[in-house]
Amino acid sequence: MKKTMKAAVLVEPGRIEIEDKPIPDVGPNDALMRITTTTICGTDVHILKGEYPVAKGLTIGHEPVGVIVKLGAQVTGYEVGQRVIAGAICPSGQSNACLEGLWSQDGPGTRHGLKPAGGWRFGNTIDGTQAEYVLVPDAQANLAVVPDGLTDEQVLMCPDIMSTGFAGAENGNIRIGDTVAVFAQGPIGLCATAGAKLKGATTIITVDAVAERMSMSSHVGADAVINFHSMDPVEEIMRLTNGRGVDVAIEALGTQATFEACLRVLKPGGTLSSLGVYSENLTIPLDAFVAGLGDHKIVTSLCPGGKERMRRLMEVISSGRVDLTPLVTHHYKLDDIVEAYDLFSHQRDGVLKIAITP
Amino acid sequence: MKKTMKAAVLVEPGRIEIEDKPIPDVGPNDALMRITTTTICGTDVHILKGEYPVAKGLTIGHEPVGVIVKLGAQVTGYEVGQRVIAGAICPSGQSNACLEGLWSQDGPGTRHGLKPAGGWRFGNTIDGTQAEYVLVPDAQANLAVVPDGLTDEQVLMCPDIMSTGFAGAENGNIRIGDTVAVFAQGPIGLCATAGAKLKGATTIITVDAVAERMSMSSHVGADAVINFHSMDPVEEIMRLTNGRGVDVAIEALGTQATFEACLRVLKPGGTLSSLGVYSENLTIPLDAFVAGLGDHKIVTSLCPGGKERMRRLMEVISSGRVDLTPLVTHHYKLDDIVEAYDLFSHQRDGVLKIAITP
Amino acid sequence: MKKTMKAAVLVEPGRIEIEDKPIPDVGPNDALMRITTTTICGTDVHILKGEYPVAKGLTIGHEPVGVIVKLGAQVTGYEVGQRVIAGAICPSGQSNACLEGLWSQDGPGTRHGLKPAGGWRFGNTIDGTQAEYVLVPDAQANLAVVPDGLTDEQVLMCPDIMSTGFAGAENGNIRIGDTVAVFAQGPIGLCATAGAKLKGATTIITVDAVAERMSMSSHVGADAVINFHSMDPVEEIMRLTNGRGVDVAIEALGTQATFEACLRVLKPGGTLSSLGVYSENLTIPLDAFVAGLGDHKIVTSLCPGGKERMRRLMEVISSGRVDLTPLVTHHYKLDDIVEAYDLFSHQRDGVLKIAITP
Amino acid sequence: MKKTMKAAVLVEPGRIEIEDKPIPDVGPNDALMRITTTTICGTDVHILKGEYPVAKGLTIGHEPVGVIVKLGAQVTGYEVGQRVIAGAICPSGQSNACLEGLWSQDGPGTRHGLKPAGGWRFGNTIDGTQAEYVLVPDAQANLAVVPDGLTDEQVLMCPDIMSTGFAGAENGNIRIGDTVAVFAQGPIGLCATAGAKLKGATTIITVDAVAERMSMSSHVGADAVINFHSMDPVEEIMRLTNGRGVDVAIEALGTQATFEACLRVLKPGGTLSSLGVYSENLTIPLDAFVAGLGDHKIVTSLCPGGKERMRRLMEVISSGRVDLTPLVTHHYKLDDIVEAYDLFSHQRDGVLKIAITP
Repeated sequence: MKKTMKAAVLVEPGRIEIEDKPIPDVGPNDALMRITTTTICGTDVHILKGEYPVAKGLTIGHEPVGVIVKLGAQVTGYEVGQRVIAGAICPSGQSNACLEGLWSQDGPGTRHGLKPAGGWRFGNTIDGTQAEYVLVPDAQANLAVVPDGLTDEQVLMCPDIMSTGFAGAENGNIRIGDTVAVFAQGPIGLCATAGAKLKGATTIITVDAVAERMSMSSHVGADAVINFHSMDPVEEIMRLTNGRGVDVAIEALGTQATFEACLRVLKPGGTLSSLGVYSENLTIPLDAFVAGLGDHKIVTSLCPGGKERMRRLMEVISSGRVDLTPLVTHHYKLDDIVEAYDLFSHQRDGVLKIAITP
Repeated sequence: MKKTMKAAVLVEPGRIEIEDKPIPDVGPNDALMRITTTTICGTDVHILKGEYPVAKGLTIGHEPVGVIVKLGAQVTGYEVGQRVIAGAICPSGQSNACLEGLWSQDGPGTRHGLKPAGGWRFGNTIDGTQAEYVLVPDAQANLAVVPDGLTDEQVLMCPDIMSTGFAGAENGNIRIGDTVAVFAQGPIGLCATAGAKLKGATTIITVDAVAERMSMSSHVGADAVINFHSMDPVEEIMRLTNGRGVDVAIEALGTQATFEACLRVLKPGGTLSSLGVYSENLTIPLDAFVAGLGDHKIVTSLCPGGKERMRRLMEVISSGRVDLTPLVTHHYKLDDIVEAYDLFSHQRDGVLKIAITP
Repeated sequence: MKKTMKAAVLVEPGRIEIEDKPIPDVGPNDALMRITTTTICGTDVHILKGEYPVAKGLTIGHEPVGVIVKLGAQVTGYEVGQRVIAGAICPSGQSNACLEGLWSQDGPGTRHGLKPAGGWRFGNTIDGTQAEYVLVPDAQANLAVVPDGLTDEQVLMCPDIMSTGFAGAENGNIRIGDTVAVFAQGPIGLCATAGAKLKGATTIITVDAVAERMSMSSHVGADAVINFHSMDPVEEIMRLTNGRGVDVAIEALGTQATFEACLRVLKPGGTLSSLGVYSENLTIPLDAFVAGLGDHKIVTSLCPGGKERMRRLMEVISSGRVDLTPLVTHHYKLDDIVEAYDLFSHQRDGVLKIAITP
Repeated sequence: MKKTMKAAVLVEPGRIEIEDKPIPDVGPNDALMRITTTTICGTDVHILKGEYPVAKGLTIGHEPVGVIVKLGAQVTGYEVGQRVIAGAICPSGQSNACLEGLWSQDGPGTRHGLKPAGGWRFGNTIDGTQAEYVLVPDAQANLAVVPDGLTDEQVLMCPDIMSTGFAGAENGNIRIGDTVAVFAQGPIGLCATAGAKLKGATTIITVDAVAERMSMSSHVGADAVINFHSMDPVEEIMRLTNGRGVDVAIEALGTQATFEACLRVLKPGGTLSSLGVYSENLTIPLDAFVAGLGDHKIVTSLCPGGKERMRRLMEVISSGRVDLTPLVTHHYKLDDIVEAYDLFSHQRDGVLKIAITP
């Protein structure tokens, strides 16, 4: 096996470049995975722009599809050559956070076993997946074998956006017969829409303004799609619900405007399920919040990871209940990833997700 | 029976006075209750000050202990002369909101059966309890018989502050072994502290600065009481928890400062349980919110009502697990209620709750 | 308006006949409904056979679709002439049971407000719906207006089998990606299958032996349908799940064989969701129960009722997510109901549900 | 360090003896613990009697208190010499079962990651704790440091009976104000009683017939203790609850009689929380089960393990909310464990738990 690999590295804020890096060694609890397909996430763009800080020289990316190349001595039940994925969030499974079910807030190296967003390691605190190879930590907890018959692109959304979007629906506790609003129909918002439908929502109202996203929104489950350039989405949702408001409002962008709109369309007793990564303080308007007397809930979700989560999501794909391959609008070689970032960060050409192949 | 009664009426913002009013008629689903003890709530002070608007001429108060005087023709299973209480929130039990479990957001007269805080009627949308008599609507759902052997003052907190405070602990989903912070130890905060202990919290840290409240806080269950005049409560809570933060933070005042402090001491994955009635927009600080990635929950609770809730709370009192009579620091006659409002609204003389007797 | 109506009455065990009865008077909290369509339930057959005792002379049936003819003086927000349904279970909304969310175990006339299955009144403790008219008790809590555009047959399943079947999926706490088994594909089992799919189950395995039911099972959502005459369903389910077992097993018949089979296919930590009405003691086999160490759950559900439940179910129908009209395999006039009972109780001619029209 | 140690070994059914065994080697993810105190569990007696089969030659026992002697190379955050406990159940944290929260049903070596009761390893599938040393597998997930100031005997119940008994209360979902019955007041039943009180139950009725246990039951929280030799416990509980029945009934013995009694005292909508290890099929009586229409739940719990669970339980001890040291009625040296088994299995001399020290 060769000793070095190509990897997309954050050289400095504003600059991601392909560099040569050594292929990592495998510790007792690790696995080495050869990447066959990966993709770019909105969070990677934040990193590129310097809005979310990571170490210079880090390999970016957290959405791996690939093949097991090498297994640590303590990792059992897998074989070299198996096709696998791992979640964007790689919990150890063994910290205090994990052992009370907070797998994304995993802090094995901390005094208390808790670390905010600590489960997110790929392309954040360790080298990521936009490379020829990636080292999977705590491989026993994180390698999920891809069922026969599923293509790379069919499972490419499982590691992050499908897991995140579905979590918006799940943690919003959507029930059969619920009316749900989803603000923003980028990749995660679209997955939230698909997740809301899977959970039994019977009226799903989505909001965006990009034609391709609005069209895809209908495709994955929206019953009504509001173009916020044409009308006020809060007014329209209240009209569509005859003044009742929605049972669950999902925020899938990360802005004050969408967060606030969620509250304004929420029925008393409803749940705001927040998926966005915010970049400034948020304001809760007193009136929409009924001064704190509305029995409202606000829940936030970081992408659930771990191999069982991945297994379930691939079950969804296998079942045919949901098909997310139409979200792959573009294909690039890893060597051309700088160009792919440029396209993706400027949302040109109706881009939703870009499949990157080394 | 006489035809008129004395009642504490909002004459205009700033002025509550005792007036004569007709004793109300009883409809088929109502009951007439003779008040034997009632009390003043912080919300009543908001009403007095004009900060929370109600109709001029309305009788104020929502915490009734008394005796059944007359029963509507459709109300069964009760007898005239029984000692009863009713919750501050009087759900109809029959609206869409009630039938999905949102009893406090009851909107029987609305198109959708939902109304923000609609279950709160006494002293808000109908005449209240600071009077010689009060009409209990939907009596079948709201009259709760006081068990033999309990005094008026033992059950006086059930209709509102005990129900509200306990809801803070319940909706925060406190588990055995949790560490809990409660910000503000007024009557509701003290009940939240008692509720947290009842739910199995093993470290309860409370925050206030009034000596009598701090002392009472220890009495009802606090393991540590922080005087926010002497030290920064956020720093101190992080120190006491070795940097871990709390599982559940309960807001029991209704201000930006306490709301924000709750977020700042909350562990990743923790729950902010909000009880306060706010009077301005709230800000969620980005850092404490981990940009939305902390798997945090924010839940708000309006006082749960209905006769089953009251039955349970009186069970707690009967069991001796909790004794809230020390919260009754003062006694006034209904005729002197103006004076009582003055004492209470200025928090003079270590006042916590005032028992008012007609 | 005429004074008498036709009604299907239990004359004695073994004999249901059409009789003339007075059209009932309307009390302050009642509504009188003219039945436009109703149907026969498996429970009615139990009553006919004397296996479930009700008073002689009682009108049978608990699945009403009709029109409001008269409203009690205290019932508000409705109009005579509106098309409505009411659930098989008619909670008062005002008993202790209802006020803690146990609407089906409603016992308003009891000392404690709890009564086993007390919410089931139509055709059980009061006159039922297989008649020209039916009196709806606690109408405020139970009348659900049929949305424009839905036919009688589209909403005919809402009062009982759809509510019951869906409850099997809901109370089994089915999650996205779950594997679910449903034993028996009669009307309720079929609705459980549809409900499991709505909740996000991705592998649904059903068991029956009647060709029409097996075919309908695929139609409403089963991924695999096992004919228990051709193979052992427990073995086959374990084979299909690679020995893992199912996350949730739904019992929809009411026999020892199906109850036990549910346990035998249940994964450790799984939930048996029981819908059947049993007629003998049940046995839990020690091995399948892992001697009590399997973290198993067994939950039973009585059909949820009340107008909010009906509203939600009609939302599901309106949304087009589920279409249960194919379950209506036969049509009879009320006058011919004796013949309909004969067909239904002998499961002749592929019968699933019979629409009865006065 | 010496090479061999003494260990209590199952020689054959009926015979546990002290033998010399090699002190185990430490793999990368293990830790070696020197036992300072351990105890005998009812399950060990089942093993002794041959009622629960384990391999001949296995060291018995699953309740360790001790000191870290050696740490595997991959285990971080601990130091040799630290006082620690580990739960009776040692989850890997990394199987599919663990990663969906079923830590006790851990099956890392299985195809699906699920194994009935697979998390129970000590004295079941690997050498146990009634020895001078024990090897702790997946040490990162299982070593819980004992807080300063707690004695061995204060934390001796955490690994099994406290965790199990509390789980009975937790999984029964006991709420503030609940009435709870606990059948059998052996060590686990007593912990269930303490757990019920911690969760906010306000009426706790327990059943036993051994004087010492009945006395201890009152001490840990029972409001009423029924001697089943003196009266029928079902009748008495129904009398004490005025015919309402209990919200939650906890089975803590493992027999048909207690299981059935739980169902007979359960209110409609109530939960039977089962902790017993059964040795024969169970029967669910049709009448008590309301033919399946009572909205009842039956939940079973295997002792929760993992270091976070242990941390929480030790928090409870530290807080002083619960003191279980009075359950230690006897002390024996490891060398005399045969005698201790004899005393314990015959329940002589009011024995509850025996502290065993090497």
